[in-house]
Amino acid sequence: MGLVVQKYGGSSVADAEGIKRVAKRIVEAKKNGNQVVVVVSAMGDTTDELIDLAEQVSPMPAGREFDMLLTAGERISMALLAMAIKNLGHEAQSFTGSQAGVITDSVHNKARIIDVTPGRIRESLDKGNIAIVAGFQGVSADKKDITTLGRGGSDTTAVALAAALDAEVCEIYTDVDGVFTADPRVVKKAKKIDWISFEDMLELAASGSKVLLHRCVEYARRYNIPIHVRSSFSGLQGTWVSSEPIGDKKVEQAIISGVAHDTSEAKITVVGVPDKPGEAAAIFRAIADAEINIDMVVQNVSAASTGLTDISFTLPKTEGRKAIDALEKSRSGIGFDSLRYDDQIGKISLVGAGMKTNPGVTASFFEALSDAGVNIELISTSEIRISVVTRKDDVPEAVRAVHTAFGLDSDTDEAVVYGGTGR
Amino acid sequence: MGLVVQKYGGSSVADAEGIKRVAKRIVEAKKNGNQVVVVVSAMGDTTDELIDLAEQVSPMPAGREFDMLLTAGERISMALLAMAIKNLGHEAQSFTGSQAGVITDSVHNKARIIDVTPGRIRESLDKGNIAIVAGFQGVSADKKDITTLGRGGSDTTAVALAAALDAEVCEIYTDVDGVFTADPRVVKKAKKIDWISFEDMLELAASGSKVLLHRCVEYARRYNIPIHVRSSFSGLQGTWVSSEPIGDKKVEQAIISGVAHDTSEAKITVVGVPDKPGEAAAIFRAIADAEINIDMVVQNVSAASTGLTDISFTLPKTEGRKAIDALEKSRSGIGFDSLRYDDQIGKISLVGAGMKTNPGVTASFFEALSDAGVNIELISTSEIRISVVTRKDDVPEAVRAVHTAFGLDSDTDEAVVYGGTGR
Repeated sequence: MGLVVQKYGGSSVADAEGIKRVAKRIVEAKKNGNQVVVVVSAMGDTTDELIDLAEQVSPMPAGREFDMLLTAGERISMALLAMAIKNLGHEAQSFTGSQAGVITDSVHNKARIIDVTPGRIRESLDKGNIAIVAGFQGVSADKKDITTLGRGGSDTTAVALAAALDAEVCEIYTDVDGVFTADPRVVKKAKKIDWISFEDMLELAASGSKVLLHRCVEYARRYNIPIHVRSSFSGLQGTWVSSEPIGDKKVEQAIISGVAHDTSEAKITVVGVPDKPGEAAAIFRAIADAEINIDMVVQNVSAASTGLTDISFTLPKTEGRKAIDALEKSRSGIGFDSLRYDDQIGKISLVGAGMKTNPGVTASFFEALSDAGVNIELISTSEIRISVVTRKDDVPEAVRAVHTAFGLDSDTDEAVVYGGTGR
Repeated sequence: MGLVVQKYGGSSVADAEGIKRVAKRIVEAKKNGNQVVVVVSAMGDTTDELIDLAEQVSPMPAGREFDMLLTAGERISMALLAMAIKNLGHEAQSFTGSQAGVITDSVHNKARIIDVTPGRIRESLDKGNIAIVAGFQGVSADKKDITTLGRGGSDTTAVALAAALDAEVCEIYTDVDGVFTADPRVVKKAKKIDWISFEDMLELAASGSKVLLHRCVEYARRYNIPIHVRSSFSGLQGTWVSSEPIGDKKVEQAIISGVAHDTSEAKITVVGVPDKPGEAAAIFRAIADAEINIDMVVQNVSAASTGLTDISFTLPKTEGRKAIDALEKSRSGIGFDSLRYDDQIGKISLVGAGMKTNPGVTASFFEALSDAGVNIELISTSEIRISVVTRKDDVPEAVRAVHTAFGLDSDTDEAVVYGGTGR
């Protein structure tokens, strides 16, 4: 008998109907002879509504209490889901993150899982129950306080439980049929990917693909837990993410896995930096001290006449203000002329392990962009990814052009988005 | 430095404004030099909304999961309240029932508190924090499952914590100014009671007064915890409930504390019962086996010619169907002619320890009802209470008549109800 961990996002359990539909799917998995552990997110917009309430009573909600508040959301959805399953004649028990043994550090609002001790889950499964676990939450090791794992935390809960319980697979149910070769909302001819390696999936996630979060894929890779991303609406086979293709799926690794894009970043250019050792380090030390994560970094060629250079980097728009402040504060120490802030940029990334051995990929990529009349502002590459920054408005056209150029287009418009506003 | 337990009901924290208002009141108590523990209910109609959701996914929600669901309500209100207090510059920490050490039996949906181990609360208070505790919930001693205490359970949480922490007073904040000599919605001239004994309060609660539940007063009496019932809206002195008048309050025990009424009961008459030993026992054994609590019981005088008698009793309307079924099932064993069910009744009760030594009270009570043209159908008395059953439609008039006859009317219409739909 296999053990399956299933995770359902907020859009899958947005209302009573959704909960009943999901309950049927869970019972099906149980009837197929599996032990079933279900990780569930808060219903629909519950979390946003709670955040809204918090902002009404306090402009800067505090970490510990904020987590206490937000975890009410999963408590509601998991209890309702357990009831709906019982109503179908099967036994189910719900568990909070704490009861499920999800132990975290004490960083409220974005805690990291440090251990999983699923004794109560195992016990419940052994009694023949379906175990429902609250996603997104845990309990801190030292203070026994309730913590949350941050955006997309439920996926991480699911993968962590799958690892701790040695599950055969972690099924992530969402409102799309799987991982696509590009965002189906932008590229109508995007194709569902049947199988993708952990490495390519990590690059896609880092490049703006929102189906799975980087952190969750990283966890799955570390413990070698196959992820099956699929729709809770259609029930079709989705996308397998694993180290090797699973079972009879003899899928050849594609040269290119997909095209990802991201319009959530901004670009900061530090203008007139003295071109001498230690300058770049001073800039990025100031940024790091402000606890800001940056993405791409490019240093322009120095103009010999002035001895000055420009350094550009990208970062999440939400961190823009903080970064500018941090740099202004260190201005005299670093020594630069001015700062330029630009939030009208977009990033397009081509991902695929096959590009390592296909020297023409980079050239084809730039040609496709050029043919579409898209100007490239920054370039950054890894072994299995090329990313460029362009004007934000050019992104949709650029993604479609690249998708077509690499032969990723499907013959039909197959991508469907079922649910509401996402997870 | 004193320790005060304050309890706020759902109507006091119905929205962000309410939560901020309550936070100010709590900070005030803290500034006055007290250690403050706050017990809070779910916001406004949250609990009803959750029940509604549960009924949508399952017609008969199961105990354990139902409790898991409902306890989300207090988790939301307590976290928001803690945030609002922090926003006023004071430290606050929220605790679930389980974290606060509220240990119960395993009877889901109506658990009883069997122990309170408030170690974490004490620790938090000693650090100078205000402790916010979720009302209405606990954790079962044996299975470590989340339990709820049933309707009005938050009041019991507050009194139990007050007892365990040896508090000076348990303040129950609500949407009226205190306990009144009659329901202010029926009797405009009802007066606020400054002080009332535990015993009289118990009788009032048992007779339909809804300000405090019987169970909570019983708990307070057992541990001798003074209760101060007051409004979270007006901030006026309310009603003290204790064994003796508190401090400088030299209040003489009134002959009559108040008039209570109850229109939530129905009357069942078992017609044509053989007038021989064991018959009444058989009837009430059948009712007890169905786990139905009854209130008043009256056996009519037997008609000598037939050797048959009628037995009437009252019970909550909600139990009516169950009681009729139980009696019909035992019909052959008991032997009676027929059953009559009447849910158009009301009960009026006069409560006061003074009536023990004032023989005229019963007579005055009946005269007042008679003068108001109200017909009496059943009578039941205790040492400090007289209750009668009348037609339901006669209740408001009867209550006003009795209130006036015993000199309880205020000179002004002083009673105010501040909040929404009550607790």
